[in-house]
Amino acid sequence: MAQLQVAERLVGPALTEGHALARLAELTDGIGPRLAGSEGSEAAVQWALRSFKADGVKAWTEPVKVPHWIRGEERAELIASERFRGRPLTVMALGSSVATPPEGITAEVVEVRSLEELAALGDRVKGRIVLFSHDMKGPEDYGRFGSLRGRGPSAAAKAGAVAALVRSLATASLSTPHTGATRFEDGVTPIPAASVTVEDAELLHRLLAGAGPVKVRLVLGCKELPEKDSFNVVAEVKGRQKPEEIVLIGAHLDSWDVGTGAHDDGAGVVMVMEAARLLARQKPAPRRTVRVVLFMNEENGLRGARAYAEAHAAELPRHVAAMEMDAGGGQPVGVVLRSAEGAAELVRPWLNPLVALGAGTLLPAEAGGADLLPLLPASVPFFGVRQDSSRYFDFHHTHADTLDKIDPEALAKSTAAAAWMAYVMAELPEVLPRPPAAPSPFAPAAGNVKPPAH
Amino acid sequence: MAQLQVAERLVGPALTEGHALARLAELTDGIGPRLAGSEGSEAAVQWALRSFKADGVKAWTEPVKVPHWIRGEERAELIASERFRGRPLTVMALGSSVATPPEGITAEVVEVRSLEELAALGDRVKGRIVLFSHDMKGPEDYGRFGSLRGRGPSAAAKAGAVAALVRSLATASLSTPHTGATRFEDGVTPIPAASVTVEDAELLHRLLAGAGPVKVRLVLGCKELPEKDSFNVVAEVKGRQKPEEIVLIGAHLDSWDVGTGAHDDGAGVVMVMEAARLLARQKPAPRRTVRVVLFMNEENGLRGARAYAEAHAAELPRHVAAMEMDAGGGQPVGVVLRSAEGAAELVRPWLNPLVALGAGTLLPAEAGGADLLPLLPASVPFFGVRQDSSRYFDFHHTHADTLDKIDPEALAKSTAAAAWMAYVMAELPEVLPRPPAAPSPFAPAAGNVKPPAH
Repeated sequence: MAQLQVAERLVGPALTEGHALARLAELTDGIGPRLAGSEGSEAAVQWALRSFKADGVKAWTEPVKVPHWIRGEERAELIASERFRGRPLTVMALGSSVATPPEGITAEVVEVRSLEELAALGDRVKGRIVLFSHDMKGPEDYGRFGSLRGRGPSAAAKAGAVAALVRSLATASLSTPHTGATRFEDGVTPIPAASVTVEDAELLHRLLAGAGPVKVRLVLGCKELPEKDSFNVVAEVKGRQKPEEIVLIGAHLDSWDVGTGAHDDGAGVVMVMEAARLLARQKPAPRRTVRVVLFMNEENGLRGARAYAEAHAAELPRHVAAMEMDAGGGQPVGVVLRSAEGAAELVRPWLNPLVALGAGTLLPAEAGGADLLPLLPASVPFFGVRQDSSRYFDFHHTHADTLDKIDPEALAKSTAAAAWMAYVMAELPEVLPRPPAAPSPFAPAAGNVKPPAH
Repeated sequence: MAQLQVAERLVGPALTEGHALARLAELTDGIGPRLAGSEGSEAAVQWALRSFKADGVKAWTEPVKVPHWIRGEERAELIASERFRGRPLTVMALGSSVATPPEGITAEVVEVRSLEELAALGDRVKGRIVLFSHDMKGPEDYGRFGSLRGRGPSAAAKAGAVAALVRSLATASLSTPHTGATRFEDGVTPIPAASVTVEDAELLHRLLAGAGPVKVRLVLGCKELPEKDSFNVVAEVKGRQKPEEIVLIGAHLDSWDVGTGAHDDGAGVVMVMEAARLLARQKPAPRRTVRVVLFMNEENGLRGARAYAEAHAAELPRHVAAMEMDAGGGQPVGVVLRSAEGAAELVRPWLNPLVALGAGTLLPAEAGGADLLPLLPASVPFFGVRQDSSRYFDFHHTHADTLDKIDPEALAKSTAAAAWMAYVMAELPEVLPRPPAAPSPFAPAAGNVKPPAH
C-alpha cells in the first residue's frame, strides 16, 4: 500500500504537471546547443544549479577538464567530369576533426563499407578521400556502423588517406548530416573527417559505380582550442535509512553544437532532474540516497564520466545501482538491468506501477550508458528504463534535434518511469547483486578517449 | 483485343525495362539542378534533344526568354536576449527574393498566420520581419498555405515590413528548408524573402509567445540577373489518321537550384519521354499525334508554358487533350479529367489495363497542371494520372529531392499509366468534349507572373 501511494505521488505529477517539458524548453530553446567547452555548456551548468535550487534539491558542481573543439566553415563539392556536372555536397565535420587548408583538399574518392575493406585496399588508399558507406536501417545498427565513424577516419589516416567522409548514421534523411565523435589513435596524424548526408553518400556510391574517377573537394575550418575548465553538476536527495548507499541517476548535460540536444540528451537531463524533484518531496525519504549526476562532455570525450569515477572512487563500492537516461524522449517500453543472478526476482515485484505506462516488463536487454562505463570496474549494478528509440536516429546529432521533435506524452511517461525506478532502487529492502567487475574501456593513460560510439 | 495488345506493349516495357529510371539518373545525378537560366537547365535541354533522338522520336527546341535568378549567401540568426541565447537559424531564399545589404537586416519579428492577420496588424508591421506561420499537415494544404509563400512577402512589403520569413511548406522536416517562388506585385518594392525550416519557425513561434521582443538578423545574397534565352523541348509521334489533332503530354524540364529535382519534375520528364519512346514503337501509330512538351521555367515564371501557348495559339483548337505529369514519382492511383459532360463515359471503357497498376479508377478530382494553365482560354480538355503524393512535400523544393527518394516500382507504374493514357487519348474514336473556356490566370501584360503556388 505504501508502495502504491509513493507510485501515485511520483507518477501522477510526472504525467500531469508538465514540469520536465517546461524545463526542457528552458534548456533547448533558452540555452540551445551546449557542446563541452562552449558558452552554452557553461550556461547549462548554471541553469542546472539554479533549477535544482528552485526544486529544493541540494546541488553542486564538480570540476572536469574538457576538450574545446569548434566547428568552422564546412563545405564540399563534387568536381565535374565528363559524366556528371559539379555540385555542392552536404557535409558536417566530425568532432575532433582537424581543418583542411583554406583552399580545401581535392582528391579522388574511394569507397569502403568496413574497416576490413579499407585494410584490404592497402596502398590504393594513399592520397585518396575515403568514403565510409553502410546501410544503417534501424537503431540496432548504430553500434555496428558507429565504429566506422569512431575509428574509420583514424584507420584511413594510417593508410595514407588525405581525408575521410562517413555516411551519416541516420535512419531518415532530408539532406540531414549527422555529426558525432571520431577518434584518432595515438601516433596517427589526424586527417579532416566529416559526415556526409545519406543522399550524397548514395550519390557518390552511384557515381563510383560508373567509369572514371570521382573527385571531391572538402573544406573544413574546425579546430581544437586549449582545454577548458568545466563541470559535472551533482545533486542529492538524502536517504532516510542508508544515506551512505548511493543510487546514481545520470544524464549528460552537454550536447553537440548543432540542434539543441532536445533528445540527446536534454530529455534525459530533465527526466532525472524531475525524478529528484519528485523524490525530494517524498516524506519519508527513500531508504537510500538518490544522487543525480549531469555529466559534462559525454559527446566528445566522456571526461565528465571519468572525472566522476575518479573523484568518487572511494564511494563506488557504495554505489548500489546506477542508471543513465540517454536514449531520447521516447515512450518507456520496459525495464533493464545489469546485475547478477537474483536481480530480476528482487525487482519484478516492484514493476506494477509501470504497467499502465507501457513499461511494466523486465526486458532481457542489458542496462548501460556511456557515462556509466567508468563504473564497470567497480561492479556497480546498472538499471534502466528502456525507451522506444525507433525514430531517435532520424535526428540524433543533427540540426533537427530540437524541441518540436519531443512528444510531451512520451516524455512525461518516461519521466514517470525513471522516477519510479529510481525510487525502487533506493527503497528495495536488499540491494541488487553486484555483477563481476569488468575492465574499463579506457586506455590506461587516456587523453581524449572515447569508446566506439554513443 | 487490339487494345489489349497495345496495352501489353506499353505497360510491359515500362514496367520491366527500367528506361525511365535510367534516364532519371542521367538527368539528376548527371546534370543535377537546372533552374531556368542556369547552365544545368541548358545542359538539360541538350540532354533531352539527344535522348529523344536516341529513342527515334523527332524533337526540336522552341525559344523561351527566362528570368535568371541566382542564390547567394543565405543565413540568419536569432539575436540573444535575456530569455534565450543567440543561435543560427536555417533559411533559404525564395525565388525572386532580393538581397539584403551585406551586413544583413536585423529587426524584430512579428508572426502572422494569414494575409488577413497581416492586414489587421496595420502599422505594427512597419520595420519588422514578418514570419508567415501555418500548420501544413498534408499535400492537400499546399494550395492554401502556398499563398503565404507566393503572396505573403509582397503583402508584407506593401505594409512596410523590411523582410519576410515563410515557414517551409513541408510535410516533414529534419531541419530542411523548402524554397519556392514568391511574387511581388507591380509597384511594390521587393523585400528579402526566405523560407525558414519548420523547426526554426516553431522556435520563433514559441519565443514570440514569451515576454519581450524576438530579433532576427537575415543575410541574403541572391540576385536577379538579366533575362536569358532558353528553350522548351518539343517532340512528336505523328498520328496515323488525324495527325493534325494533338494530344499534349508535358512535364517541366527545369527544377529548383537545390536538390536535383528528382521528383519535381525529373520524374514527370522521364515518364512523358518514355511514353513517347514506347508510342513511337507502336505499329500502326495511334490515330492522333502525341506531342511531348518539356516546359522550361515552370518553377519561377511559367515562361515556357506561356511561350508554348503563344507560339501554338493557332493550333490550340486542335489540341484535343493535354496532360502534365508534375506530381513526383509516386504510385499511380487513378485517372482524372477536366472536360465536359460525357467524357467519363468515353474514357472509362479504356481503363482496364490500369487496374493491375492500381490506377484503373476515374477519380472525381480535376486534371490540371501549372504549365497547362495558358491552355484554359482555348478550352483544351485535360487528362491526367493521379499519383500518391503523400510524401511529395517532404522533399519538394529542397536539397533532399534526389534520386534516392524515387521508388523504382512506383516510377515504372506511373510511367506505364501515363503512356497508356496518352495512347487512349490519341486512339479514342471520338475526342473528349471541350470544357467551357476559362479566363487565363495571367495578368494581361505579364512580366514574371506566376499563379499562387505549384
